[in-house]
Amino acid sequence: MRLLKPEKLTATAFAPYGDVIEVATAKEQRQINYGNTIRFHDLAELDLTGREGKALVSIFRSTPLPRPIPIKVMEVHPLSSQAFVPLNDRPYLVVVAGKSAHFQPENLRAFVAQPHQGVNYHKGCWHHYSLALQEVSDFLVIDRDGPGDNCTEVHLEEEIQIDY
Amino acid sequence: MRLLKPEKLTATAFAPYGDVIEVATAKEQRQINYGNTIRFHDLAELDLTGREGKALVSIFRSTPLPRPIPIKVMEVHPLSSQAFVPLNDRPYLVVVAGKSAHFQPENLRAFVAQPHQGVNYHKGCWHHYSLALQEVSDFLVIDRDGPGDNCTEVHLEEEIQIDY
Repeated sequence: MRLLKPEKLTATAFAPYGDVIEVATAKEQRQINYGNTIRFHDLAELDLTGREGKALVSIFRSTPLPRPIPIKVMEVHPLSSQAFVPLNDRPYLVVVAGKSAHFQPENLRAFVAQPHQGVNYHKGCWHHYSLALQEVSDFLVIDRDGPGDNCTEVHLEEEIQIDY
Repeated sequence: MRLLKPEKLTATAFAPYGDVIEVATAKEQRQINYGNTIRFHDLAELDLTGREGKALVSIFRSTPLPRPIPIKVMEVHPLSSQAFVPLNDRPYLVVVAGKSAHFQPENLRAFVAQPHQGVNYHKGCWHHYSLALQEVSDFLVIDRDGPGDNCTEVHLEEEIQIDY
């Protein structure tokens, strides 16, 4: 049995997998609305419209898994990015394994995301489904609708748990 | 001086202006992630990709206006929708005036949005910029990047305040 120890989520550490949606690492800030608003501009590489796709906004309501949290299934969206932004003031877990044609268990990494951090998985990045902590939690999700098979799952042979 | 009294925000009342992004009025729910997630699917008519546009995700950090809140400027995006989802547990105000080629002050309506409610202004719907209440507040914003002039503002001649 392998234990996966979660790291702190930072934009730099997460760069191979996608974007951290947060004000702290925004590349561009604009003063708008007569000085009443700061626009932290363009925080994620959304990739949603390929092959006649369109952007969708949904809310995912996720129930925490019982601890110790097992990693049994990973998924990938070959046609689009997928962004999650937490709507509750709670941390959550992010598990990824990078971009590769086939899932590589040795590439697994886990991160603890803080309540002010969203994540955007880039197209083709293997990831676990949303892992709420503490209580049932809502996430705003920006992903794709359109033709084509846009979700591949793999069931893990090795027994892996999150050490959190 | 005219006073605008805010109404309760409901999907039905807001339908002429756009979508309320909330689980309560979702048209479709899907059980996903092996029963651990409910997907409240496709909560807003995003209209972002016309005229070579692309979807953007940003965070707006808005400072509350001093009370009584004056309505001095309204804006419209003729090329795209614009969605706001609150990231803090606070209500906020929404002011709209519907879809018309020119701003019509007699069409002004105000709504109090609850912390679990986002709004998506449809393309061409006159609206006020984000009106945080109580404290500086963050909103996740889904709007458009692309060519063309996508923001028209009008400065109101009449003195109007929100009665809230």
